[in-house]
This record gives sequence, structure tokens and C-alpha cells, in this order.
Amino acid sequence: MTIAQISAHGRLRHLLTLEDLDREHIQMIIDRASAYLTKVGQPPAHDTILRGMTVANLFFEASTRTRASFELAAKRLNADVLNLDVNTSSRAKGESVMDTIFTLQAMQIDMFVVRDASTGVPAEIARNVEPHVCVLNAGESEVSHPTQGLLDLMTILEHRPDIENLRIAIVGDIRHSRVARSAYHALTKYGVKELRLVGPPELLPDSSFDGAKLCSDVDEGIRGADVVMALRIQRERFTELGAIPDPQEYARRYGLTPERLAITAPNSIVMHPGPMNRGVEISGEVADGPHSVIERQVTNGMAVRMAVLALAHEHVRDMQGISA
Amino acid sequence: MTIAQISAHGRLRHLLTLEDLDREHIQMIIDRASAYLTKVGQPPAHDTILRGMTVANLFFEASTRTRASFELAAKRLNADVLNLDVNTSSRAKGESVMDTIFTLQAMQIDMFVVRDASTGVPAEIARNVEPHVCVLNAGESEVSHPTQGLLDLMTILEHRPDIENLRIAIVGDIRHSRVARSAYHALTKYGVKELRLVGPPELLPDSSFDGAKLCSDVDEGIRGADVVMALRIQRERFTELGAIPDPQEYARRYGLTPERLAITAPNSIVMHPGPMNRGVEISGEVADGPHSVIERQVTNGMAVRMAVLALAHEHVRDMQGISA
Amino acid sequence: MTIAQISAHGRLRHLLTLEDLDREHIQMIIDRASAYLTKVGQPPAHDTILRGMTVANLFFEASTRTRASFELAAKRLNADVLNLDVNTSSRAKGESVMDTIFTLQAMQIDMFVVRDASTGVPAEIARNVEPHVCVLNAGESEVSHPTQGLLDLMTILEHRPDIENLRIAIVGDIRHSRVARSAYHALTKYGVKELRLVGPPELLPDSSFDGAKLCSDVDEGIRGADVVMALRIQRERFTELGAIPDPQEYARRYGLTPERLAITAPNSIVMHPGPMNRGVEISGEVADGPHSVIERQVTNGMAVRMAVLALAHEHVRDMQGISA
Repeated sequence: MTIAQISAHGRLRHLLTLEDLDREHIQMIIDRASAYLTKVGQPPAHDTILRGMTVANLFFEASTRTRASFELAAKRLNADVLNLDVNTSSRAKGESVMDTIFTLQAMQIDMFVVRDASTGVPAEIARNVEPHVCVLNAGESEVSHPTQGLLDLMTILEHRPDIENLRIAIVGDIRHSRVARSAYHALTKYGVKELRLVGPPELLPDSSFDGAKLCSDVDEGIRGADVVMALRIQRERFTELGAIPDPQEYARRYGLTPERLAITAPNSIVMHPGPMNRGVEISGEVADGPHSVIERQVTNGMAVRMAVLALAHEHVRDMQGISA
Repeated sequence: MTIAQISAHGRLRHLLTLEDLDREHIQMIIDRASAYLTKVGQPPAHDTILRGMTVANLFFEASTRTRASFELAAKRLNADVLNLDVNTSSRAKGESVMDTIFTLQAMQIDMFVVRDASTGVPAEIARNVEPHVCVLNAGESEVSHPTQGLLDLMTILEHRPDIENLRIAIVGDIRHSRVARSAYHALTKYGVKELRLVGPPELLPDSSFDGAKLCSDVDEGIRGADVVMALRIQRERFTELGAIPDPQEYARRYGLTPERLAITAPNSIVMHPGPMNRGVEISGEVADGPHSVIERQVTNGMAVRMAVLALAHEHVRDMQGISA
Repeated sequence: MTIAQISAHGRLRHLLTLEDLDREHIQMIIDRASAYLTKVGQPPAHDTILRGMTVANLFFEASTRTRASFELAAKRLNADVLNLDVNTSSRAKGESVMDTIFTLQAMQIDMFVVRDASTGVPAEIARNVEPHVCVLNAGESEVSHPTQGLLDLMTILEHRPDIENLRIAIVGDIRHSRVARSAYHALTKYGVKELRLVGPPELLPDSSFDGAKLCSDVDEGIRGADVVMALRIQRERFTELGAIPDPQEYARRYGLTPERLAITAPNSIVMHPGPMNRGVEISGEVADGPHSVIERQVTNGMAVRMAVLALAHEHVRDMQGISA
């Protein structure tokens, strides 16, 4: 059963996946996020609208940047913030995820930011919480990372608003990437001209990227591309793969270098979700070069998370009005 | 030497054990806690009275729910909150507990929330801190967990105010349970009609539960009970016990099931301090069923912790007035 | 290349080392810190000047007291605070320190409090951040711990303002001590009469303490001293040293005891940076005795960290004015 992410009042209640979110709601989030951007060197945006609300960051999988980004977003909106890092192994010994959620809900937590290594956990939580409670997916197995997809879309739109004319290449371990899946859903809803998924044959997806073009030759994949997004290659992949014996070999075949960038479109932009393996999937020269918008992705990520929390807060207020 | 938990001005200064607290002061805490309850779906209670005070959560033993509950309670009262998770093994290598306390006290921390696996640590801290500083016991070895005892009492009183007519059964590893000990102290002060301690003979207590009835047959123990409280069974107990070889066998003999509940009093309530081992000491059907008040215990726990912090804050203010 | 710690507008921008800071700026910090002291038992100082700013505590090396002190200092100034404990081993697998910094900077963090086990990391960060961003060193390898040096100096000045008449002895593992190095820089700038570095020959420094007197006989080292600072002896040193087989032997030869203190100057003060190994480098009797100012060091440390954050905030404001 699909969970409704939009409430009966038209509010963003949950953010679980971009797959079921229509373009109008995606645009609503990005517009709100744009309002939270400030100039570099200026104070970050602050808002008091979450004062009195409680946000729990429930990370069943380690994370530094996404956790920091959600935590700061909630604090800058004046929420009370609770961080819970629960590794999956201790979860096995302890109570079920849903019992943890019910316990925290009984402490009157309004919003759960959840990262989990298993598919379906955020939706399961969303299905079972009280009507006023919101669930925000901060990374789910290999299938969904919606705030990442939104920040990627927002960053592309900032630099190339004419998305229906763009050729976008994602390079790396597409098969295991929630980043690629969420980018795919965002970009196809915006009518991207061409989406190319580039990587070693073993790391290309089998299905679930309808309409995208698969490509194991990197030069063919990025030629003429307006946007090139390199994915982090997990070091544990090297042991699994006969075709790619080591990081050096991966870098030689698929790493983004200034030479490779030369065959992309003029003024192409380079993205990476971080954390980067410099010298593997991306060279330091490219990461720090004029094409790179990697730090801008991080700034937009903060704004997207503030936007999502701010929008979800309107659902909580709606429901408080009803139960008052 | 017993530590005075009540100050010369009649304030709750420390909360170390319910054993030495009289009914009047227990009722004062519960009344204050009741004032911090709000309707489900409504914003949680907030208060600014701890603004400018600092609460340190010093957990020498792992905890998720009690730590989260105290942390949120302090934040909702506008305290500055410092979380310190210090595992006991690293404590052995480092400085003494009292040196850690003296260091934090020199940083002008007003209240220490302490959980420790050794008996006597909260009292030792209370004995040595400055006159304005408060110590709140968040779980002490197998002997005391006073906020748990208070939330259990509060939950029972909400559902059954006529406590002197109640039969209450606690089922599980009574011998090693600080939850059972604190419940015992709270309930006996309120004149409970009958307290039954139920569990395998190896897990029944030897003394320290004066006036309670010990019972190793679960059906006898819960028959006609108005309140049944299941305790979490620690998995490490199974290896120690010849009599109870595994969780399945424990569930068969002592687990709370709908069938067993049928012999309790009509409208009996079922409690559990969490985290639950579903299918072991309590079946999922009972945990989620109409008799269960388990989530209400969590909500009341938040309110009790806010109340205890708010009351202790009055002691700090008293002393600041004196030293001003 | 040396990094300018003072901005073009004369503000304290970074605090990396006391070596390059002149006495005037050191005094400025201490004066500001003095303004943040309150009486024992009174509420700690609070200030709202960092409201809207974000401080990240980035600890690549474990710490309890310094982290707690910086965290509370930032909270009492109303900053948004982000704690990141990243151990060095996981750093090796992940992104580079500078990529972590650039990511956090893109989240609009204004001040980085950094502890690292490698020499040069705080300066490398300071060299690369945006012009408005500040870097505060919270402990760097064996070379620098400037807030510790400042709090030590402040504590000495409180008790003995006539520093040019003082004999000060530092006892312990001088060679590996960032505490000793920062104290040396602070004290020599204030014209201390005599600085004696006392310890086993293997733990005395080779150079970098110009003008100090080295001494392996403890009685000779502390005789007539007005200030005696004991350093924490790391337990791992015992395995490296032929000369000092075990803690008991170290205590016998170099531990501060009441008997040893008798040969120091009348009214001498005893200091320790903490955490203490009671019974090793310092006896409990001395630690808790009338000469000890150890807890006062902690209180002054809070004030110093508030002062440094408050001063650095003026640099951030300067730059926001420029980029506005």
C-alpha cells in the first residue's frame, strides 16, 4: 500500500520517496528552500516556526553530513532536537523499530527523520504513527534518499533552468545507489532530455530506471553532457567485483578528470553527493575546479531540509487545530 | 548515612530513592507532573523556568529511552543540556566519578542526572556536591530507579485512584530489578492492598520486599490482579539459569498472553517499563491490546522528569538567593 | 607560512597557538574572560551575542572536559552548536579533513573548534576557510593547547599577579605535553622569573623551551616554587620507558605529596590540567588540599572559552558587514 505523502489539506506530511510526489509539490519544496538561502558570508536563515515542536533524528545507519544537515536545519527553525544513533546490530538485540518509534511518539515527538539500511522502514513508520506525526526519509537502503534528490534537482535548476534541454550523466555504482534513484525520479518528472547511467556493467541497474540510457563506456556516457554527477564508490565493492580490481583501476576507467571533462558540453557542471574519494571517482582538480558545484549542493541541502521541516510543520499545526 | 532528599526549605533537592521519600512529597511530584500533561496531538508542555540553568546527563550505563526522556524534559524547560555518555570501562582507565563531577560542577552545572551500574554512586555524588547542586537518579544498579517508580505510580493512580483496594502483580526477574524495587516503595507508601512478586524461583528476591507476596506460579500470581506489570527479561539471564533454558520456555511459563490476562480482574491494566521483548515476557497482542497502558507510562515519564527538574530548580533558586 | 590570528581590524579571528600572540591580545582575552566569571553558587554568565551563529565542535581525538567546556561556552552565548566526534581511524577511510570542513562551511558554520592528534591540522584549516570563518584550536598533537595555556595563565594571575617575581615548576611528561608548551608561551610573554621543567630525563624536552630550566630531580625542581603544575602522566608511557617501570615508581619519584609541597614557597599553588591520576602524579591529599586551584582552572577554562568565542564573533560580524 502506498502511503500518502500529501495530507488531505494538501500539506507535505511525509517525505518518503520522490517517486510518488508530483512535480507541483516538488516545486513547492524547492521554492520554499530558495527562500532559506542567504549570501555566502551572511548569517544563515533562521525561523522560529518550529518553536515548541520536537524533531528526532533517528539514524540506524552512520552518517555525518546528512545528520548534521538535518540537525542544523531543525535548530535553525527553533525546534527541540533529539539525536539518536542506534546501530543496526544493537537494534537486533533490543526492541523493534516500531516500539522505539511508539516510545518516542509517546514523548510527543512531532517529526521523525529516519535513516535505515533496510528497504521499507520509513514507510512502515509512516503507516503506523499518529495522524499529526511526520516522517522524513534521510536515506533508505539502496532505494530512496529524497532530500538528496531534491537538492540535486535544485542545484541543477539554479545553473540550468532549461532542464528539458539537458543531457545528464550519472557515473558510478548506479545499481546500489539511492542517490541515483532519487535523482532519476526528480529529473524525469522535470522532463530531462536525456539521462545516462554510466558505470561498469556489474554496477549498472537491471530495471527501475525506465527511459534512462545505460552505458558502460564513460567517454560515450559523458560526451556532450551538461551535467555530470559522480557517485561515491564504496570501497567494499572492489572485493566483490572481478571487473574492477582496485580503486586505481576504477579511477583510470571511470574517474572524472579534467581530460574527461573536456568532452562534456561547454559550461557543464560537476556534482557529487559526498563524501568524496578524491583520486578515485573524481580527481581533486575537478572537485575544486570551475565546473564543480559540489559545495553548493551542500548549501542547497541545508535549505531543502529546512523547507521540508517547515512544510511538514504546517501539517502538524493543522492536526493540532483539529484535536484542540 | 542517609542523604536528605528534601532541603531545609522543604524543596525536593535530590531524587535518589523513593524509599526515604514520604507520601506527601511523592504526591507533590505527581501533582506537578500532571500539570505537564497535554492532550495527545497537542503541543507538549513547555516552560521557561530552567532558562540559564545547566543540566548534565551523565550516563555511565547505556540507555536510550530514559536519556531521551530526561534530555527532552530539560530542553522543554529551557535548560542548557549537556549529554555525557561515559561507559564504565573507560571510567576504569580515567579519572574517578567524583573528579568528573567536580570538574563539571566547576563548569557551573546545576543538576546532574546520573545513571550508573554500581550501587551508591548517586548518593555518593549527592553527598559531595555544592549545596546548590541537585542529583537525580536515572537508574542505579539493581536497587533504585525512582522516576520509573513515580511514573508507574502515576499511571496506576490515573486508571485506579483507589490504590488501597488494588491487587498488583509484578512478573519477571524481580531479584535483579530496580524497576520492581522502586515500584514496591511507591506502592507500599500508598497502601496498596496486595503486592505480588511473580517469577521463577531463581529470580524471586530474598528480602527487601517486606510485606509482598512471593509467587512462582504465574496463574496464581496474576489471578484477580487489577494491575499486571511485566518486567523486561535480560537475555543474559538465560545462560545463568538451569530452570529457564531459553526465551521460548520463559514465554511459555511466564509470558503475558491474552489467555493469561483472562484470569486477571475485569478492566485490569498491563504495564511494562520497556524496552519490550515481544513474544517473551509479553505477547504483541497484549502489548498492543486494550489493557495496555505502556505508552501512557512513557508520556507520564516525560511529565515526571519535567516535574522533578522543575521542583529541583526551586532548590537551586533558593540557594542562589542565599549566596547572592 | 604563519597564519594571522588577528584580523586586519584587530580582532581575534583564529586561536591556533599562543606562540604568535602578543601579550596585549592575550590580556584582551583574559580581561574578557574575567567578565564572564560569576560567584560560586550564582547562575553562570550568559550572553546572547552568538545568537544566529553556528559553532561546530570537531573532535578527531576523544575528549570529555574540553569538549564539554567549549559546548557549554557556545550554548551560554546562544550559538547553535553542532558536535561531531570523528575518530581518526574512520577519518582514514573517509573523506579528507578539508573536505569535511568545506562541507560544514557550506552549511554556514561560522566557527570551528578543532581537536586533532596531528600537528598542523588547525592551521591548515585556518589557511583554507572563507574569510569570515574562525578556527579555535582545542588541542593539537603535542604542540599546542592555547585555551589551556590561557586558563592556566589566568589562574596564576588571579592568585599571584606579580608574575615577574614567580618561580613556576611544571612536573611530568614535558616532552609530549601540549599543555606545557602552551603554558610556556603564555608565561614567558608575561616575564615569569623562572620556569622549571621537571621530570624523568626521558620525558624532558630537547629544545623548544628556550630559557626554561630542565631538571630531573623533583625536589630541586619544586624547591621554593610559587606555582607547581603537575601534568597527567599517560599510562602508555610506562611501557616505553626503561627508567620508569610503573605508576607506583613514578609516584614515588615525581608525585606531588604533602611532604614534597612542604619545600615549595609558602602559599604556593598547585595546578593540574586534568583528568588526574590520583595517587600517581598527584596525591589525593594535595589535589583536594588548600594549595590546590584545580577546580578554579576548570571555571576559568569555561570563561576563557566564552571569551574566545565572543571575541571571534566580532570578526564574523565585521565580515558580514563587508559582504552585506
